[in-house]
Amino acid sequence: MGGDHGPSVVVPGVALAAARHPGVRFLLHGDEAALNAELAKCPAAKAVSEVRHTDKAIAMDEKPAQAMRRGKGTSLWNAVESIRAGEAQGVVSAGNTGALMAISKLILRMAKGLERPAIVASWPTARGITAVLDVGANVESDAEQLVEFAIMGAAFHHAVHGSTRPTVGILNVGSEEAKGHDEVREAHALLRETKLDLDYHGFVEGTDIAKGTVDVIVTDGFTGNIAVKTAEGLARFFANELRGALTSTPLSMLGALLASGGLKKLRARMDPGAINGGPLLGLGGIVVKSHGGADAKGFASAIRVAVDLARSDFLAEIERNMERLTAVVADRPTEAAQGVSE
Amino acid sequence: MGGDHGPSVVVPGVALAAARHPGVRFLLHGDEAALNAELAKCPAAKAVSEVRHTDKAIAMDEKPAQAMRRGKGTSLWNAVESIRAGEAQGVVSAGNTGALMAISKLILRMAKGLERPAIVASWPTARGITAVLDVGANVESDAEQLVEFAIMGAAFHHAVHGSTRPTVGILNVGSEEAKGHDEVREAHALLRETKLDLDYHGFVEGTDIAKGTVDVIVTDGFTGNIAVKTAEGLARFFANELRGALTSTPLSMLGALLASGGLKKLRARMDPGAINGGPLLGLGGIVVKSHGGADAKGFASAIRVAVDLARSDFLAEIERNMERLTAVVADRPTEAAQGVSE
Repeated sequence: MGGDHGPSVVVPGVALAAARHPGVRFLLHGDEAALNAELAKCPAAKAVSEVRHTDKAIAMDEKPAQAMRRGKGTSLWNAVESIRAGEAQGVVSAGNTGALMAISKLILRMAKGLERPAIVASWPTARGITAVLDVGANVESDAEQLVEFAIMGAAFHHAVHGSTRPTVGILNVGSEEAKGHDEVREAHALLRETKLDLDYHGFVEGTDIAKGTVDVIVTDGFTGNIAVKTAEGLARFFANELRGALTSTPLSMLGALLASGGLKKLRARMDPGAINGGPLLGLGGIVVKSHGGADAKGFASAIRVAVDLARSDFLAEIERNMERLTAVVADRPTEAAQGVSE
Repeated sequence: MGGDHGPSVVVPGVALAAARHPGVRFLLHGDEAALNAELAKCPAAKAVSEVRHTDKAIAMDEKPAQAMRRGKGTSLWNAVESIRAGEAQGVVSAGNTGALMAISKLILRMAKGLERPAIVASWPTARGITAVLDVGANVESDAEQLVEFAIMGAAFHHAVHGSTRPTVGILNVGSEEAKGHDEVREAHALLRETKLDLDYHGFVEGTDIAKGTVDVIVTDGFTGNIAVKTAEGLARFFANELRGALTSTPLSMLGALLASGGLKKLRARMDPGAINGGPLLGLGGIVVKSHGGADAKGFASAIRVAVDLARSDFLAEIERNMERLTAVVADRPTEAAQGVSE
């Protein structure tokens, strides 16, 4: 539940998802009266849903620490708890991201061997979809964490975007070996020498994101968050400028009308809702964050991500690669001295 | 000189600039024969230019360290040297950025009190132009360096983009005080408590760049480089998608033709060449980098930046603010111990 719109978006989103994923059933955690009112309007959702009432909720602006302390019994808490209880295979929430992360870590713990979670953004590119992570779960990431992001991102891309052997790049200020700070260069060395079940491409630059040079782009949460929000702002700016350009004169307006078919397709390509759904990776369960402002179609897209992850070999794949990484890291006695340091 | 096109872009660029800035004269450093051939075609440039011959040049892919060692006598070296000799008030180069930075630091040194140089990008936004720095001179920046970027960026925006009292924000993963890593929070505290001749706004996010929320956005060179290159890639992606959308059907093509006036304006708004010219700030002289692929119009725009800086109070403004900063930093005996920690 949660998000800017609550049940009025979640329930129609479930209806869309139900048509797309036969056999999937939904537990809806939240205010019974509000949920039932929406379900009454939406028989397709009602047929596959069960309501779990609670009148407690976590506010969108609540701090994660506070949410953890007083979160018990809220819709968000109960949803995550239903994974631990074995009632659900995944959670989708449009609520408070920080709270979702904190409560999920508390209840589900990290998956075996992983140090830090990561949030993934799926980015439409010239060649398909590129997964960028971390986009905000951490503000700093050391070399080993960056390698963990590579492993998680590859498993995610394989499960959700269908690549057979995902290509992975590390985001840097240039593609030459000597570029960047210690963390990215050390992660680069680790990915070069560890035989992981992914195709490590090397360093990539900011321009490579939209080009789709690789399937997975790895970066620290600070840089990733700023890259993804910069792009979001720019997409909105372009959309406004385009609207302005096409309504500036009567002739432009007529032109826009004639070109509306093509422009509609363009809007769909540029619509972030079309690939909404950022999983919180690294946890001992499947948790997907839907954008707070997403519409029903966007929410259904987030559900799709959770369903694809739940039906895949995703967690086992991460575990296999983590074992290989651990073996390599254990074999590097001087690693700490050799400067993964600050 | 330098860049992907050399004299064939530089000379027509000078002609455009000559018309825009009467009274400005140009020293053109490079191969005499090539320059004179272009000047012969371009009397407007010839009238305001003097050629300084050299047949040595720095290659676009040369490493900065190597460029410093063997750079003496190259066109780039001679151009920077002409500032030290008092012959020129500023340098514009489309050559190798790393070499330009290294040689400029060597010959011109840093301006008084400043620790590290920064490269600025001028970003077209919904409200005007926002200066983003650093976009690549450094891979890591501590709090004091971020404050120096704020001071340099404000002086730049005032001189070149005409704001009377520039607003400045620090790029972060959220706008709340507690967000981000140590460096940004410490810089935030310093900017809050130092009375500088600029209007400090606080933290801004990636989405604020295109919105134009502030005149100057401060960030470390790693994040800034990735933000600016991500945006560059996205702008290219949108332009291609738009072209695709408008040529997908005969009807779309007709529409695009009718709307071409508006679309042309849009392209101009999105054209990075229109605000080409990234000064290397912090040096003891005015050095402006033109994009290697810029056309004559773009090169003229880089010249405009150098002229505006040279005609402004820019270096003195930086010095005044640096004195205020130094006073505050000196007054903080426990600063290091005082815990910019979590």
